[in-house]
Amino acid sequence: MSSAYSTVVDLLSKLSINPKTVEHEPVADNKAWNAALENIQAGVSYKLSKTLVLKPKTAKSAAPTPLVILALDSTETNITAISKSIGLKDCRFASEDLLKETFDEDKTSVSAFSLSNVKDLSLVHVVVDSDLLSLDATEFIAFHPAASDKTSFISSADLKAYLDSLGKEYKVLNFKELAAAAPAPAAKSAPKAATKPAKPVAAAASAEDIHQMGIEHKKNEDLPRWYQQVLTKSDMLDYYDVSGCYILRPLAYNIWKEIQNFFDAAITEMGVEDTYFPMFVSNRVLEKEKDHIEGFAPEVAWVTKAGKNDLEEPIAIRPTSETVMYPYFAKWIRSHRDLPLKINQWCSVVRWEFKNPQPFLRTREFLWQEGHTAHLKKEDADVEVRQILDLYEQVYTDYLALPVVKGVKSEKERFAGGLYTTTVEGFVPATGRAIQGGTSHALGQNFSKMFNIVVEDPNSPVSATEEAKKIHVWQNSWGLSTRTIGVMVMVHGDDKGLVLPPRVANCQVVIIPCGLTVKSKQEDYDTIYGACNDLAAKLKKAGFKCKTDLRDNYTPGYKFNHWEIRGVPLRVEIGPNDLKKQQVTAVRRDTGAKSAISLNNIENGVRETLDTIQHDMFVRAKAERDASIVRIDKWDDFVPNLNDKKLILMPWCDRTECEDDIKDRSSRSNDTEEEVDERAPSMGAKSLCRPYEQPTENPIVPGETKCAACGQDAKHFMLFGRSY
Amino acid sequence: MSSAYSTVVDLLSKLSINPKTVEHEPVADNKAWNAALENIQAGVSYKLSKTLVLKPKTAKSAAPTPLVILALDSTETNITAISKSIGLKDCRFASEDLLKETFDEDKTSVSAFSLSNVKDLSLVHVVVDSDLLSLDATEFIAFHPAASDKTSFISSADLKAYLDSLGKEYKVLNFKELAAAAPAPAAKSAPKAATKPAKPVAAAASAEDIHQMGIEHKKNEDLPRWYQQVLTKSDMLDYYDVSGCYILRPLAYNIWKEIQNFFDAAITEMGVEDTYFPMFVSNRVLEKEKDHIEGFAPEVAWVTKAGKNDLEEPIAIRPTSETVMYPYFAKWIRSHRDLPLKINQWCSVVRWEFKNPQPFLRTREFLWQEGHTAHLKKEDADVEVRQILDLYEQVYTDYLALPVVKGVKSEKERFAGGLYTTTVEGFVPATGRAIQGGTSHALGQNFSKMFNIVVEDPNSPVSATEEAKKIHVWQNSWGLSTRTIGVMVMVHGDDKGLVLPPRVANCQVVIIPCGLTVKSKQEDYDTIYGACNDLAAKLKKAGFKCKTDLRDNYTPGYKFNHWEIRGVPLRVEIGPNDLKKQQVTAVRRDTGAKSAISLNNIENGVRETLDTIQHDMFVRAKAERDASIVRIDKWDDFVPNLNDKKLILMPWCDRTECEDDIKDRSSRSNDTEEEVDERAPSMGAKSLCRPYEQPTENPIVPGETKCAACGQDAKHFMLFGRSY
Repeated sequence: MSSAYSTVVDLLSKLSINPKTVEHEPVADNKAWNAALENIQAGVSYKLSKTLVLKPKTAKSAAPTPLVILALDSTETNITAISKSIGLKDCRFASEDLLKETFDEDKTSVSAFSLSNVKDLSLVHVVVDSDLLSLDATEFIAFHPAASDKTSFISSADLKAYLDSLGKEYKVLNFKELAAAAPAPAAKSAPKAATKPAKPVAAAASAEDIHQMGIEHKKNEDLPRWYQQVLTKSDMLDYYDVSGCYILRPLAYNIWKEIQNFFDAAITEMGVEDTYFPMFVSNRVLEKEKDHIEGFAPEVAWVTKAGKNDLEEPIAIRPTSETVMYPYFAKWIRSHRDLPLKINQWCSVVRWEFKNPQPFLRTREFLWQEGHTAHLKKEDADVEVRQILDLYEQVYTDYLALPVVKGVKSEKERFAGGLYTTTVEGFVPATGRAIQGGTSHALGQNFSKMFNIVVEDPNSPVSATEEAKKIHVWQNSWGLSTRTIGVMVMVHGDDKGLVLPPRVANCQVVIIPCGLTVKSKQEDYDTIYGACNDLAAKLKKAGFKCKTDLRDNYTPGYKFNHWEIRGVPLRVEIGPNDLKKQQVTAVRRDTGAKSAISLNNIENGVRETLDTIQHDMFVRAKAERDASIVRIDKWDDFVPNLNDKKLILMPWCDRTECEDDIKDRSSRSNDTEEEVDERAPSMGAKSLCRPYEQPTENPIVPGETKCAACGQDAKHFMLFGRSY
Repeated sequence: MSSAYSTVVDLLSKLSINPKTVEHEPVADNKAWNAALENIQAGVSYKLSKTLVLKPKTAKSAAPTPLVILALDSTETNITAISKSIGLKDCRFASEDLLKETFDEDKTSVSAFSLSNVKDLSLVHVVVDSDLLSLDATEFIAFHPAASDKTSFISSADLKAYLDSLGKEYKVLNFKELAAAAPAPAAKSAPKAATKPAKPVAAAASAEDIHQMGIEHKKNEDLPRWYQQVLTKSDMLDYYDVSGCYILRPLAYNIWKEIQNFFDAAITEMGVEDTYFPMFVSNRVLEKEKDHIEGFAPEVAWVTKAGKNDLEEPIAIRPTSETVMYPYFAKWIRSHRDLPLKINQWCSVVRWEFKNPQPFLRTREFLWQEGHTAHLKKEDADVEVRQILDLYEQVYTDYLALPVVKGVKSEKERFAGGLYTTTVEGFVPATGRAIQGGTSHALGQNFSKMFNIVVEDPNSPVSATEEAKKIHVWQNSWGLSTRTIGVMVMVHGDDKGLVLPPRVANCQVVIIPCGLTVKSKQEDYDTIYGACNDLAAKLKKAGFKCKTDLRDNYTPGYKFNHWEIRGVPLRVEIGPNDLKKQQVTAVRRDTGAKSAISLNNIENGVRETLDTIQHDMFVRAKAERDASIVRIDKWDDFVPNLNDKKLILMPWCDRTECEDDIKDRSSRSNDTEEEVDERAPSMGAKSLCRPYEQPTENPIVPGETKCAACGQDAKHFMLFGRSY
């Protein structure tokens, strides 16, 4: 990228063009570009440009003759009209491969300057919007100089100079006039639509959509951009103008609702009741438990004003609700008969982190549930900690089709102010990093002592003093957040987009009419569309979440992409041949496997296929995760495996000093390597958990087995890894 | 009250005691008292006192001989030990009537000084905690001087001087030592509990609970305190240390969940999808629509700090989400095919009002749903506005058993920035005030013009210019909040506490064993308790929300109160006589009516009774509401009816000037009256809505019927009233 950029700089400077250039975050489309430029305030008056590359229909054996269209982003580009006016027809947007082959660029970086990369310019058609060449001297055109994270501002005159320098004929057209004169495709097809649906062709109006629709980054090549594109192009999430905050669109929110439904029912069964505490906390209450608040203080958001008035004292927005709730526990719990007290709330919390935010994984506001309970006996609290952890595991395994490791956090990693922390640890193979998926804390009596939550021991001897009879209650707290969704996307998503496990998909089955051509008659349409609607009704009745895509202005191929990006688990195609055989063609999103399902057994067939998908997704993810946990016995194997995107299971001494040392040694190690791979970041390894399921083969022999890191006596096997 | 207070001041000043006295909000118990004092920071070091009044067992015909116990609030008062040490037994807390009769005080205002009101001090026993009389000179004792909204601080020496001045013998005891020496009641009964439940007696430990349990204010005498007590004593809500914020406890939150379940399913059916937008809004976005933000600006809470760092620019917390969402509508809606766009979110919003907060009715943070939709055609938007309004009506009528009037807001009262606002208006008979119960706004195109939410008109002629083809979408927004719960409490609650409609009760049926006495055998207990458990299992299986109250340390009477305060719709009593007849005794919370239900038809019997309760509650509320709407034709009838707690339906000219004038004239009117009744506040009347259901008898005759307020031509009937 950067060498491509310097090539552009060089070739422009030869023409005495030295454009102002600014850097910004990489942008995937012009909306993002616009936002990025607004952010940095370039200090010039500019208009965004767009560069469209199309491929006119040619014989299969012939070399492609791409059409390059240069225009202002704000100008309507009626592709049919434009291509027609230079004698081309049936233009489609060029594939990424063609872009690469012809211009050595991808869609986000292609620009007018890419023409300099073309080996044989005679094969290329160039059409330029007259508006682009007629800006007045105070206005600049914004271009990407061969890189989507940079913008150069050049004048109309300079652009013309550059184009002229190519020695290639180009055509200047007034795109606005062209577009205005062109027939409106919708108006044309409107009368037809009433009787027979318009033929499914990729109309000019939608060609641009197709091009913008696909995921342009490969998961194993550029995970961050892939992740961003999958989230936004699947309509799962949108970026928001307050940094670190994101919009959860229906596709994402529905997953959260499914998790809520399952988990809320399960804890209700356990006697937990839902409640809602205020989001605001006074400073006095927030600071009551020192260890606890120390962990959160740097990230607390403070409200200091209402309207134009300063508040008498700043009020915090909850980062978590221990100190919000426990003064009321002290009030409500007056006797051992009030125990156990078990409440939960579904809410959002705010942690104003200054690290790089990432949708779902690290956000400043996020949705979660937080359960808070109080018990008379430690044993009861301990049991509940595990029950909740098992439910968290179920959320991952049964709903999100993701494996987790259940275990206990080390002393260093446990919740501030608590007694011990249990966790479900997820794993993202693409980065080789673990991710804390949900935590269930035994808080012990620390908070109950701080907040004076006491009852009289019903079993204390008669002679005991009042003080001796007092029992500080045993408390737990446990939380699961929308982070779950991010892990799911990271693990299951592929180069085509999202892949949703059927149990959390808001659309499980999409039905698409196929096999209709320009030659098809009205009856053919009626038959196929009717069959689609009938099937949808049948499946809905059987409890499936199901949609039909009968849009008449898109081809089946377009629709396939559309629903693949959105992760719909099962696509059902219905065409004339299918109907003849009284069947449908079912295509699995997770594997792409096609199969026929008989129409007279369709409910069972769909149910079985969805169950299989759900099951297979988990099995695949688990196999990959299992293969990524390496058991080692000596330190030499630690860093190489870590850098190989593995998690490490090893005998450990359970000492914080040793853990600090491991982190240190595993982050330093990279410095000595010649090349640092950005996808194997140099961050040190953390302890993830002491798995409840300890190896039974070659188990720890007390006094004999040594810690793989420091050589002292090992206490148990511990899981280590890089972590989100 | 205030004259009682001056009596105390007078009698103390005669003793040369002039205590510092502060004023605060009326407090119902010592927790609230403590909070109130912390709030105002009295500037002295103090300890709260408590004054307990008990009634020892006496012959029915004999005059009662109350025992007055004075102690520090922090001191444990073992009533059994204390009464025993002065030769009394079987002490129960005195009834409100006895308090009134003996001391001319109620529970919240009774204090040491109340002894001055006693006509015959020889009948009263007085016992004083030695700690109360031995504070050092820098510490003061906090007392209520005959009023729960005042606190006087006096020294131990002054208290002693006062007590001595009474000329009445009083006993000083060391309560702590007494309590420590007393046998623990729980330990005593523990061994028994394992085999046979302890006899249901109101043990000393629980006597205090009983006293604190009941609602001490009558709904029609002191509505504000009644409301506060019903909410807190029913465990529905708790006060919170950030003003204007409240804790929704499970009883209240469950009502919200029931509303959510119904409403969310209904709008899902309409194609609305749930989503979640960030709670934070940048200033730039918030201010985009001027009219709109003007309505909210004074109440917006601003985050200006994170940790110790000032934010670069302050960020608002959403007061509502129009301006949060609509920039994204502009992004997501690219074609008429993207319409209608219908999203909804369940969240909390913050409006930092400075008026007196009231739980549920006016709070700084509240829970709500907000729906936001965009349509191609105004007609479609109009239809949806009414569909949503009908759903809001259903929430009130079908779930909360409350009648509402559906209608359109006047120009003056409509949503800022919108086209027109529709509303469901509730009514609180106790105050004669209406309350806006939910609003469904047609926003028109105002926001879509501001935020540039446009599509190309699919029906525009081919020849139209690009500009002419543009359609700004038609938008709606609609919201319903936890205010619903407040209205329900206000309307249905009675002097015994909460009354819950069965459809929103988290416990619909409570089963209480009855008829067991000290003479009952273990088998009797087994039989009755067993029958209770069996019935509970049966009812749960049939889908009822049901609890048994088998606590062995409370009498049936105590349990009746306990569940009555909490509003449980149906109490089922099972005693030996019931079992003999193979029946249960069912008692309705709403009417107190008792009936027998046969055990072999119990599911149907319970279902029918609950249905009847739900139905009757609505019918009663509607009859009362209907009787409170008075149709008038002339202004003279306006204010008298308003002051008689009525709503007014009258022909109206529909002019904002006239509305302003009505408000003015209806608020001024009270000034001329000699006595201002605090329950008929002097606030002016507002227009509530133009009911969709206009009177058919004597309808408006255009050009003939005149506005009852100004005499101009009437346009329609309008509902007016005082309003929350």
